[in-house]
Amino acid sequence: MIIVMKPSATAEDTAGVIARVEELGYRAHPSSGEERTVIGVIGDDRPVDPDALRSLRGVEQIHPILAPYKLASRDMHPEDTIITVHGGATFGGTAIPVMAGPCSVEDAESTFAIAEQLQGMGVKVLRGGAFKPRTSPYSFQGLGEEGLKILAEVRERYGMAVVTEVMTAEEAPLCDEYVDILQIGTRNMQNYRLLEAVGRTRTPVLLKRGMSGTIEELLLAAEYILAGGNEQVMLCERGIRTYETATRSTFDINAVPVLKQLTHLPVIVDPSHATGRWDLVEPMSKAAVAAGADGLIIEVHADPSQAISDGAQSLRPEAFADLLRSVERVAQAVDRSLDLAAVKA
Amino acid sequence: MIIVMKPSATAEDTAGVIARVEELGYRAHPSSGEERTVIGVIGDDRPVDPDALRSLRGVEQIHPILAPYKLASRDMHPEDTIITVHGGATFGGTAIPVMAGPCSVEDAESTFAIAEQLQGMGVKVLRGGAFKPRTSPYSFQGLGEEGLKILAEVRERYGMAVVTEVMTAEEAPLCDEYVDILQIGTRNMQNYRLLEAVGRTRTPVLLKRGMSGTIEELLLAAEYILAGGNEQVMLCERGIRTYETATRSTFDINAVPVLKQLTHLPVIVDPSHATGRWDLVEPMSKAAVAAGADGLIIEVHADPSQAISDGAQSLRPEAFADLLRSVERVAQAVDRSLDLAAVKA
Amino acid sequence: MIIVMKPSATAEDTAGVIARVEELGYRAHPSSGEERTVIGVIGDDRPVDPDALRSLRGVEQIHPILAPYKLASRDMHPEDTIITVHGGATFGGTAIPVMAGPCSVEDAESTFAIAEQLQGMGVKVLRGGAFKPRTSPYSFQGLGEEGLKILAEVRERYGMAVVTEVMTAEEAPLCDEYVDILQIGTRNMQNYRLLEAVGRTRTPVLLKRGMSGTIEELLLAAEYILAGGNEQVMLCERGIRTYETATRSTFDINAVPVLKQLTHLPVIVDPSHATGRWDLVEPMSKAAVAAGADGLIIEVHADPSQAISDGAQSLRPEAFADLLRSVERVAQAVDRSLDLAAVKA
Amino acid sequence: MIIVMKPSATAEDTAGVIARVEELGYRAHPSSGEERTVIGVIGDDRPVDPDALRSLRGVEQIHPILAPYKLASRDMHPEDTIITVHGGATFGGTAIPVMAGPCSVEDAESTFAIAEQLQGMGVKVLRGGAFKPRTSPYSFQGLGEEGLKILAEVRERYGMAVVTEVMTAEEAPLCDEYVDILQIGTRNMQNYRLLEAVGRTRTPVLLKRGMSGTIEELLLAAEYILAGGNEQVMLCERGIRTYETATRSTFDINAVPVLKQLTHLPVIVDPSHATGRWDLVEPMSKAAVAAGADGLIIEVHADPSQAISDGAQSLRPEAFADLLRSVERVAQAVDRSLDLAAVKA
Repeated sequence: MIIVMKPSATAEDTAGVIARVEELGYRAHPSSGEERTVIGVIGDDRPVDPDALRSLRGVEQIHPILAPYKLASRDMHPEDTIITVHGGATFGGTAIPVMAGPCSVEDAESTFAIAEQLQGMGVKVLRGGAFKPRTSPYSFQGLGEEGLKILAEVRERYGMAVVTEVMTAEEAPLCDEYVDILQIGTRNMQNYRLLEAVGRTRTPVLLKRGMSGTIEELLLAAEYILAGGNEQVMLCERGIRTYETATRSTFDINAVPVLKQLTHLPVIVDPSHATGRWDLVEPMSKAAVAAGADGLIIEVHADPSQAISDGAQSLRPEAFADLLRSVERVAQAVDRSLDLAAVKA
Repeated sequence: MIIVMKPSATAEDTAGVIARVEELGYRAHPSSGEERTVIGVIGDDRPVDPDALRSLRGVEQIHPILAPYKLASRDMHPEDTIITVHGGATFGGTAIPVMAGPCSVEDAESTFAIAEQLQGMGVKVLRGGAFKPRTSPYSFQGLGEEGLKILAEVRERYGMAVVTEVMTAEEAPLCDEYVDILQIGTRNMQNYRLLEAVGRTRTPVLLKRGMSGTIEELLLAAEYILAGGNEQVMLCERGIRTYETATRSTFDINAVPVLKQLTHLPVIVDPSHATGRWDLVEPMSKAAVAAGADGLIIEVHADPSQAISDGAQSLRPEAFADLLRSVERVAQAVDRSLDLAAVKA
Repeated sequence: MIIVMKPSATAEDTAGVIARVEELGYRAHPSSGEERTVIGVIGDDRPVDPDALRSLRGVEQIHPILAPYKLASRDMHPEDTIITVHGGATFGGTAIPVMAGPCSVEDAESTFAIAEQLQGMGVKVLRGGAFKPRTSPYSFQGLGEEGLKILAEVRERYGMAVVTEVMTAEEAPLCDEYVDILQIGTRNMQNYRLLEAVGRTRTPVLLKRGMSGTIEELLLAAEYILAGGNEQVMLCERGIRTYETATRSTFDINAVPVLKQLTHLPVIVDPSHATGRWDLVEPMSKAAVAAGADGLIIEVHADPSQAISDGAQSLRPEAFADLLRSVERVAQAVDRSLDLAAVKA
Repeated sequence: MIIVMKPSATAEDTAGVIARVEELGYRAHPSSGEERTVIGVIGDDRPVDPDALRSLRGVEQIHPILAPYKLASRDMHPEDTIITVHGGATFGGTAIPVMAGPCSVEDAESTFAIAEQLQGMGVKVLRGGAFKPRTSPYSFQGLGEEGLKILAEVRERYGMAVVTEVMTAEEAPLCDEYVDILQIGTRNMQNYRLLEAVGRTRTPVLLKRGMSGTIEELLLAAEYILAGGNEQVMLCERGIRTYETATRSTFDINAVPVLKQLTHLPVIVDPSHATGRWDLVEPMSKAAVAAGADGLIIEVHADPSQAISDGAQSLRPEAFADLLRSVERVAQAVDRSLDLAAVKA
């Protein structure tokens, strides 16, 4: 890191900072410009909290130089991470899996019905929430373990992988028994106990960006999971909170190529949450693929007006079938393809 | 709620929406303007997810009318909630308690030392983190239960109440054994399992606003706790995330009087996190009290440059003593006073 | 609009609001729910300032129903507006023009050189700033009229249209003499005198979204120009200001399909400013076209490291040629094509 | 500035950057850490555009060290700037002037009436808009020069100073004939021609922060005016745009002490726009003064429900009189006082 001293800092102040840097085990490299003295800190200073140094007398600015994550960094791990799940969907390679299904698992019958339809379109991964984080305590909170059992049954019957959200550290082992991909929801990107819990499994994790998480914080959240020994982490851009209210979130599509540069982990896009409006899901899916996304996760419901949650952003199956066709064309235009199972004509 | 139909909506579309509204158990009250048909929904529609209606054919806009929270609302509970804790600090009345102490409990000795200093200034509540949520997995994560024991010892020795952050639902009962106020941190405002867990205790809760939480979401998070039967909830404004980088967060001081209007719960301000800079803590404490805050929570450390976390925003004890004097004057100017213990001269 | 009364509002309060609504020339349509009285305002209430009503006794909320713009609205003008400029580039149809060139016109020689290169790639519109708005008074402010003359010379020599930014109402007539498209920069989206000035010309306008402008404000800014009688307005998404600092702006790609729904005006994307990084321009150009953009505007400089402004986001000509090839493929995948002149092999 | 090279940068890349730095007239000071090479640039590099360097091969990060403004900086000008206007109001000293009046000058009669009432309360500066920037072209745009004449008449009759917004460079000389303080509105903080125009006058300027302007951009905007030779600039915090919709803007009260540290210019607060709600103006005025504001500007209207603009945030005269009393007490508590004229009992 680089420490910039105030113009009013005395030689004694500078000496104090140097002493503290050396006490922490680093070498200090001071140099004086015309208006400021600058102290370079030599060594891997990731473990040092810049905040503590900021409070030393005479310090004006601190500029960290090294990204604070390591395992997630492409610097340390140049090749792309490839993740393959039950049923064969493969994330991080040329083909682009599409995860689809209802926001919530509402009951067995409707879940099997939608799974069958999606399987018929070649979809290899079913999404569906069993534990639902809801802004209001008065909203439907999910079927819980019963929902997990329905998902496990989908897995068996249709040969699809299933992905579901885990809400707490203690529920992680339970979810892990039933599903193929553990999703960390946007409200939990910085729920560190939960990150540690999924880091202890060896199941792929779909880590959603926090509603106001920075790209760096997303990578640090991934670092928690990777540091636990679970190397199968996928990052998911799902829209961020801004001042614009025309859409529920602002889809930060810049994040897709930025993440591809910074990390080796697959980058997934959730156009349903990134827009909050079903009629924007198709154009934003095409955009995501054009931008380099490694996967999509999309809400599909047989009758969105009857959906228990997130109806406004769910596509009907027919609209979703159209989407697959149009997104496939864009995928081809960037030398990729959707990762769909061959379907009997 | 009010449902606005598109200009292109047909009579059949409108009939479909009315039918759905009635199916949900409400009365629909349509009226046609010059350019749009508007349907009023009569009844307590808080449990209805507006999203599902948004996906009905012909719907353009939905405007909820009722606030989605009830127990937290001043409409339902006009008198202020008053919360008194061990040692006598009382939140929500005329006097304004100041909670102070280090970001983290670092060891017994330093914690006792700072507690003794703060007690000597009349402070009735010690803050200190035992479980620390850290953005990086490589940062100090807190002493855990050992930290709680140190806090309990402070409670005994100095007669102060103690407040600490609870990070997960399963740690809630443990924390509850040791401390007087359970803090929900900013990253956990929407950790619903945790909100439910502290809702099951009968211990006062200090609920921090999420880094990008809206005022409405903060009140809904409080609603989770209140719905669990725990009526002792304090809300804490601690800065929100915006584009401005001159300070770590933007202190949303408007939230103080807005919350006082909307809810009966005490409103606390954390000027340390709301600014991220120790040199802004005093002016922002004065501003918070002038704006109507019912309490303050402030980081104080014997030597911020040696603090394990958050050094940049921690005050030295002497600066904190000055702050108490100057804030007391502002409190008097708004017909209040700081809730400090009488101190021997 | 819909006016919602407070639960505490008296019959007299409601009568007062109704009286005021009728005084303004509208019909009031009150209806009482279980917890609130709601008053519908019947008639085209766009000219009414909701703020004034908000201050009437007993009023709790105001919900406007009609979009506040008319001429820009697709409701009023369902067919797409098509704009053709000198040299034949056509915006708003199936083909997608690409405007390209340096941030600033630096001198005649380098401008002719880059124009010739771009013409050789089929580019029909050259961009280049003569008047430059700069955050610091110490930065290069543009060549002024001399820059306009250079652009006019490009127009003659290479048969390209030219687009340049107009900074003030009084400079508008001057710029209008020289160029084919008048650009309103992001800092001037709400410079109403300037909008009026370009509204008085009959020259196409490229209206950039303000750095923190909402979609509605962008359409209202267009309304100013349209209301002046100039129907040739193009809207330009160029990134918005958010908390994320990994990129200079956050490219709000959702705005592309949202604008296409709300308005008949062509929607252009500026991936150079929307990212601030040259290495993100190609993926974001592909994404913009996949999302439905009607045009692109891209910074290209022969040697970005020597550019007087915006070097970090400027592409070298070779990289731009690659971009055109890859974006053309995406355009084809969405049944469109780039609007490039046929180039001799 | 500090230039950080990529880990993959070659010795040749580093040499290239050093050569470019020296070509620009600075000394380069390279030093190699374990993972990165860092190049310090020695000299006053404010005129260098960091963007151009960012595009050099091998460059990863650029960290400016010096603030890009000079004349506005407290480093260069440690003593507070004091500004006194007609009628005696003095900004930047111990006393705190309060500017008050209607959003728009609506007609002579009502303006004289409110001026007389405010004068009776000791207010020394009347605010009122003659040229109004309005989001919609269909809203009232102000009386123009007629409004200026009414303000000039207030000046004569009541001995008050008057402040009004200037919207364009060409209107600046006209406004300058009539008023005592030229206001730059939030939409024009980066209208550089306008800043230059008021910089050519010798009349005090009230420069409002842009709706999404950073503190640094505000100081750079002030620098434009100061660089023109007009040293009488006051900065005005008036709320910023964030995701929170409970208030029209988020009052960034942190900016008050931050600005007081960075600059010698007086810092004014506009609690009417910072909240958008009349019922929040009094608590936020107290907070502003507690935080160290050097002045307030507040909208007051005889009957806000009839106001042509901004009714929702205007106080009635009686409420404003109460505000003055309560804010005076807070001012005393921070060893200041309101700058009000002695009023006959």
